[in-house]
Amino acid sequence: MYLPSQRRMLSSMTVQLSGRLARSDRRSPGDFCPIDRAMQVVGTRSAMLIMREAAYGTTRFDDFATRVGITDAIAASRLRELVDAGLLERRPYREEGQRTRQEYVLTDSGHDLIPALVALGAWGRKHAVRRGTPTVTHEGCGATVDVVMHCAEGHTVDEDQLLVTG
Amino acid sequence: MYLPSQRRMLSSMTVQLSGRLARSDRRSPGDFCPIDRAMQVVGTRSAMLIMREAAYGTTRFDDFATRVGITDAIAASRLRELVDAGLLERRPYREEGQRTRQEYVLTDSGHDLIPALVALGAWGRKHAVRRGTPTVTHEGCGATVDVVMHCAEGHTVDEDQLLVTG
Repeated sequence: MYLPSQRRMLSSMTVQLSGRLARSDRRSPGDFCPIDRAMQVVGTRSAMLIMREAAYGTTRFDDFATRVGITDAIAASRLRELVDAGLLERRPYREEGQRTRQEYVLTDSGHDLIPALVALGAWGRKHAVRRGTPTVTHEGCGATVDVVMHCAEGHTVDEDQLLVTG
Repeated sequence: MYLPSQRRMLSSMTVQLSGRLARSDRRSPGDFCPIDRAMQVVGTRSAMLIMREAAYGTTRFDDFATRVGITDAIAASRLRELVDAGLLERRPYREEGQRTRQEYVLTDSGHDLIPALVALGAWGRKHAVRRGTPTVTHEGCGATVDVVMHCAEGHTVDEDQLLVTG
């Protein structure tokens, strides 16, 4: 337990620990927050894992349901939402003697989500690891892949150099 | 619609589009997938937005509920889950004349989630943008911050150089 003066110091240390990632005002960002907007689209485990499967090259409805481990009803609902949100697109295909079906492939917007998938996987590998965890590696050198924060001017950015504006 | 031979070609193109992010086998990763493990912890909009607020420096229960826009019951449940999962820790504090209360601060594990928050925000800003969207910038140079994929050997990694092993 901290007394008021200690708590204020702790609170200021906490801000330091959390870097400069502080908004210039405290209005609720709501729909204007791009993290919130992203989570409105991929803010469920099933949606994110369908995106993982699409990045792995899965295209068929049955494969999405089986590999994510969800019911057909949930798979149908999530795939429709991800198509509507522009992360996947449907393409018709037909196997000989079968009716025409739809497959699902990543759009450019879907491809742009891959760094977020890699970042979540890097966190999971570090903090919630179990033996046999799959690892994303760099083809050729074989080293583990993570993400680093980088600005448009090409600088590597540490957490304590982050500033939220707007 | 594609005939079988065309569809196979399309399928192979799809794998190309999705880069080399293909598992060496097709077993269902389940609990072994680090993305899945991460989404078991922060796989709800409210959990991820509480982590965003903690990164912004929010520590008080009431502020989490108000700034994320969730009920006290949901805030209490999410905060408890995030503490149990090791992303936040409780610290007692007391204001003069008040009873002792708990505040919530990021642990090291919680700090390690920030690149994933930045990656989701970068996706949201690019693909689900609205006017007035807050932007994460690099203090000093002011340029927008995104994430880049990077391997442990220090190479920048493109999507088509990703390989999933294990």
